Amino acid sequence: MLRTILAAVMLSAIFMSRSEAQALQPPNLMPQPAHAQLGNGQLLIGPTFSVAITGQKEARLQRAVELFLIQLGQQIGMPPIDMMVTGSTNATLVIQCASGTRSVQELGEDESYRLEIGNSGAKLSAATALGVMRGLQTFLQLVTTTGEGFAAPAVVIDDNPRFPWRGLMIDVGRHFIPLDVLKRNLDGMAAVKLNVFHWHLSENQGFRVESKTFPKLHEMGSDGLYYTQNEVRELIAYARERGIRVVPEFDMPGHSTAWFVGYPELASAPGPYEIERKWGVFDPAMDPTREETYKFLDKFIGEMTGLFPDQFFHIGGDEVNGKQWDANPKIQQFMRAHGLKDNGDLQAYFNKRVQQIVSKHGKTMLGWDEILRPDLPNSIVIQSWRGPDSLAQAAKQGYRGLLSSGFYVDLMWSAERHYATDPMSGAAASLSADEQKRVLGGEACMWAEYVSPENIDSRIWPRTAAIAERLWSPQDVRDLNSMYQRLEEESLRLDWLGLTHNSSYDLMLRRIAGTDDVAALKVLADVLEPVKDYTREQTATEPATSAKPLNRVVDAVRPESATARQFADSVNALVAGSARPGTEARVRSLLNRWRDNQLELQPLFEKSLLLKEVAPISQNLSALGGAGLAALDYLDRGERAPAAWVTQQTAIVEQAKKPQSQLLIMVAPSIQKLIEASAGQVASSSSPLPAK
Amino acid sequence: MLRTILAAVMLSAIFMSRSEAQALQPPNLMPQPAHAQLGNGQLLIGPTFSVAITGQKEARLQRAVELFLIQLGQQIGMPPIDMMVTGSTNATLVIQCASGTRSVQELGEDESYRLEIGNSGAKLSAATALGVMRGLQTFLQLVTTTGEGFAAPAVVIDDNPRFPWRGLMIDVGRHFIPLDVLKRNLDGMAAVKLNVFHWHLSENQGFRVESKTFPKLHEMGSDGLYYTQNEVRELIAYARERGIRVVPEFDMPGHSTAWFVGYPELASAPGPYEIERKWGVFDPAMDPTREETYKFLDKFIGEMTGLFPDQFFHIGGDEVNGKQWDANPKIQQFMRAHGLKDNGDLQAYFNKRVQQIVSKHGKTMLGWDEILRPDLPNSIVIQSWRGPDSLAQAAKQGYRGLLSSGFYVDLMWSAERHYATDPMSGAAASLSADEQKRVLGGEACMWAEYVSPENIDSRIWPRTAAIAERLWSPQDVRDLNSMYQRLEEESLRLDWLGLTHNSSYDLMLRRIAGTDDVAALKVLADVLEPVKDYTREQTATEPATSAKPLNRVVDAVRPESATARQFADSVNALVAGSARPGTEARVRSLLNRWRDNQLELQPLFEKSLLLKEVAPISQNLSALGGAGLAALDYLDRGERAPAAWVTQQTAIVEQAKKPQSQLLIMVAPSIQKLIEASAGQVASSSSPLPAK
Repeated sequence: MLRTILAAVMLSAIFMSRSEAQALQPPNLMPQPAHAQLGNGQLLIGPTFSVAITGQKEARLQRAVELFLIQLGQQIGMPPIDMMVTGSTNATLVIQCASGTRSVQELGEDESYRLEIGNSGAKLSAATALGVMRGLQTFLQLVTTTGEGFAAPAVVIDDNPRFPWRGLMIDVGRHFIPLDVLKRNLDGMAAVKLNVFHWHLSENQGFRVESKTFPKLHEMGSDGLYYTQNEVRELIAYARERGIRVVPEFDMPGHSTAWFVGYPELASAPGPYEIERKWGVFDPAMDPTREETYKFLDKFIGEMTGLFPDQFFHIGGDEVNGKQWDANPKIQQFMRAHGLKDNGDLQAYFNKRVQQIVSKHGKTMLGWDEILRPDLPNSIVIQSWRGPDSLAQAAKQGYRGLLSSGFYVDLMWSAERHYATDPMSGAAASLSADEQKRVLGGEACMWAEYVSPENIDSRIWPRTAAIAERLWSPQDVRDLNSMYQRLEEESLRLDWLGLTHNSSYDLMLRRIAGTDDVAALKVLADVLEPVKDYTREQTATEPATSAKPLNRVVDAVRPESATARQFADSVNALVAGSARPGTEARVRSLLNRWRDNQLELQPLFEKSLLLKEVAPISQNLSALGGAGLAALDYLDRGERAPAAWVTQQTAIVEQAKKPQSQLLIMVAPSIQKLIEASAGQVASSSSPLPAK
Repeated sequence: MLRTILAAVMLSAIFMSRSEAQALQPPNLMPQPAHAQLGNGQLLIGPTFSVAITGQKEARLQRAVELFLIQLGQQIGMPPIDMMVTGSTNATLVIQCASGTRSVQELGEDESYRLEIGNSGAKLSAATALGVMRGLQTFLQLVTTTGEGFAAPAVVIDDNPRFPWRGLMIDVGRHFIPLDVLKRNLDGMAAVKLNVFHWHLSENQGFRVESKTFPKLHEMGSDGLYYTQNEVRELIAYARERGIRVVPEFDMPGHSTAWFVGYPELASAPGPYEIERKWGVFDPAMDPTREETYKFLDKFIGEMTGLFPDQFFHIGGDEVNGKQWDANPKIQQFMRAHGLKDNGDLQAYFNKRVQQIVSKHGKTMLGWDEILRPDLPNSIVIQSWRGPDSLAQAAKQGYRGLLSSGFYVDLMWSAERHYATDPMSGAAASLSADEQKRVLGGEACMWAEYVSPENIDSRIWPRTAAIAERLWSPQDVRDLNSMYQRLEEESLRLDWLGLTHNSSYDLMLRRIAGTDDVAALKVLADVLEPVKDYTREQTATEPATSAKPLNRVVDAVRPESATARQFADSVNALVAGSARPGTEARVRSLLNRWRDNQLELQPLFEKSLLLKEVAPISQNLSALGGAGLAALDYLDRGERAPAAWVTQQTAIVEQAKKPQSQLLIMVAPSIQKLIEASAGQVASSSSPLPAK
């Protein structure tokens, strides 16, 4: 029965163009699979659901199925105990796995799978347990509520990743992030098929791993906030069960103040050192001229490569300002003696020595852009924070590379902007086929100046799911509406994994408001976003430090306002005359709410210090609401708004557009559009709006 | 400065009556302390907050302060690293602890404390670290958002518990509850000053602890869902850090089918046995006549008393139906030979033997009502599920006892009803002083037929906080309005501990609706409660089993509807003519919403099987809304509703009052009241309502 349906589905698929095939995409998958065709009907998922593993058997595969059943159980509210793993091929879902996986997950292991779902059963085939894991995640995304019960649609999916390296970096140096928070984020990564967790473990502000060889690293450099080696092993095992590699980064020779608290002799200037509390680029750097430095690093890297099994070892290598080197006569003397003409040369010398150590311990060195110098072997991998052009340059020189520029989730960009970033864009687009192969993929980067265990999930999710799609799905998957629609679905699904990107919003607003009735605050917060890029640091009234609480409105609001995005769509449709019925009513209802919200919020300002700083923003939003309503009135009457009024309202908008308390009112540009339309400044708006 | 204020506060307190003192109670404390007087001003809590420990120092005390700082950090959104524990007496909060605690927490250890908060500092004094823990929880409850920042009011609190045994029992036998869920519930217990976690570890449906002596107990009796001994130790340590004792229960000789799967020779009838999947009282019981039974129990209890350090060991002892005993000729012969005239005698014989074993292993035996028989020593403790009278009877016979009758949170009673239950009520009220001392306290009981890790928190919290207050606070603390107001606050505070009693509601409704737009479903679900007592089992269309998913509306809705309670208050005020302005408008708004909600919900019924079963309930709520509105109209016009109309509407109410899909519409009685009032059946409603 299953076979018959699938055969029919496949037959019809042969004659389809890509766009026709797109129309047959099952809903809600993120990342979008390489190939998918919806069939007819659906497979009901109930308490009699069972899974059979045929072909290759390994403990990791068995565990993957267990985890799948737990997750499915959560999703549909049935205890996994009732959904047996059976040996029989009569199971609802039959898994066929061709061969085993490596004892340490490797870059480029086969992750492809084929998932066939019919009315009476499903089959998942893959070359390896990794492919099975990816396919099981797809299966989970397909299960929805229906009138007949939980079900997955009949479908045939053939899927494989575009890039072999799809990562998420989390900086646990600037703010310590506890193990359970990392675990739930690994669950999120697995859900969207990311396969590398890049663990940024040391920073000026903290050294986060227990070292048995050099215990003063974590004892004196972490405020007691570090992972024990057992915890590290626990996390690596957790990641492995989810098909995720763990790449450690120990940033050197810069970004290393926390090392020097316990071992000042490593630095290029005499100590003593303290854990850094501020953000930025700092002077302390390792002394690349002393042999003792390399002896230390040899032992340290030996210990850490023993702890972290992955083939790759990240040495950071970014942002050395060179001031300590310039000021140290011995270092200057060394440079002259060795013909190193500048600090770049000195760092290259350091990198070469470290590369030899890393290589001696059997690992491949990975570092940020700066490590790229011609005298390093082609085996090293470059992670680009500068952009695709620097990535292309590396590829041309024979180096493999990863894109992270454009994927920095701490910069508070929209999902759209991250989604538009492509490792194969810019200069990379014109690489030869061989050079292109050196572009391994990319990594979302969660730098941690402004994240705590409480809000980090909301900075990573759901936007990272859009980055994951960019790195997994075919390059031509780029429909924005579809992306946002699926992103919203995925965001809700991630709630089931215990991620707090949605739930912490309410909690934080409650704390700010000092009451559980946060309706009015939410109306405001829903249209706000934190300032972008590095503006938060630049506009701070006093220097930010790691001791500053992250409990302000800017810490609670979402990086991307869905309300503002949807409002912009509605306004665009209105001024273009292409709005569907009901649009203007919805727009008016929002504008009314914004205008009147200030009155509701007012009494709370005096009751909460944390709320007080957004009082002027609330005032501005109220003014914007009023301006938008008046503009709509002009448009409705088909009357051109008077110039004086337009000037006045434009001033209101300009005022509202200015960042305040490091927040932006994201609906301001749409209100501006309404005002411009009412003034006849938009071509199609000279005609009155369609009837409501 | 602090001293001066405190002296003033205390001076004024001397001349106060109890009711005057009540008026000076700080808000939001739950349980209410024994004595408290609010002062003037407040203590600001910010990043410079620090704690000093003076007097007795022990690791447990240090850890208690760390946990306090973590929790305070979460509550106010500041990293605990910034709120140092100092040795200096210049700290914001100075802790003075007189003496150390026992290596294993004992029943009756001193939990009293004195907390003095002034404008510039606070002092917490206690006899033991336990008192410090209780005082720190009080401190956390006092911290609120203010216009000046986070702050605690100036206050002097002298507090101590009414009963020394204040417990929560969780049944992990019928549904396995993972360790992390138990941990967050221990956090909740600590927050409301409960001090005994009673771990109901074995049932017909599962044996949940690893036994190294008899491994087939957990291997064959648990579906793989059990706690390892390391996990047990981890939980006990976790509880100890929070001042909570852990009392294990292994139910015998009945409720023990799961034991017999691996060890059928223990039973009174030949096997084989399977893990029980249904709920109820079953035939299998241990064979009390074989010496091998006691040899087994001796080894087993020896192993478990080694694992669980608490002085008390609970042997269950409840609900033996005796059928296996009646049917076994050897057992009958044994009874005749030993002069045991009925099964009660036989069980008493068993209990006596088991008591000797428990005692031999240095522990005190605890069991349910049934174990109370004159031939057992006075050292045993009786846990009463039958009521205060049976507790009083035990106390008169010299036995110590605990009340659990009236505290069964699985019965879905209101907090009010639990709150009205008092261990010293009924026959216990007339006990002599010495006898009263034998009433040790009580335990909330979470029996687990219908709870999963997903909804168990919502069955325990917040109602258990009301029970905790009953067991901690003075007997005359019984103001219902105050209790409900503080209960709501406490419920929100418990969110910060990771308890999911609030958050899982939305998630479960989303799953049921198959969409994240659950507004309409929530309007309905907010006024529903699960049927009470054992009605769910009695009205099930097919027998409930442990394999049944717990994902229905009845599993999601709260045990007590706050909406219905508040609506009832409003309606009562309206018909009594004592309503404040705005009350009728609020009542009308709710009635309108209920009437119209069915239209909004209608389209979803066909899309979700889980939702379909509440379609008739939604229809009934809609009818109730209409009836209520019409009744209000009559009242507003001062017109007596026609008898025919009243009859018709009463029929609607009667229909709506019937349980459907094991749910009750909790606003039906209030609508009935409106109808009766409109018909002039309530004395004070003959006059028209006050103007809106």
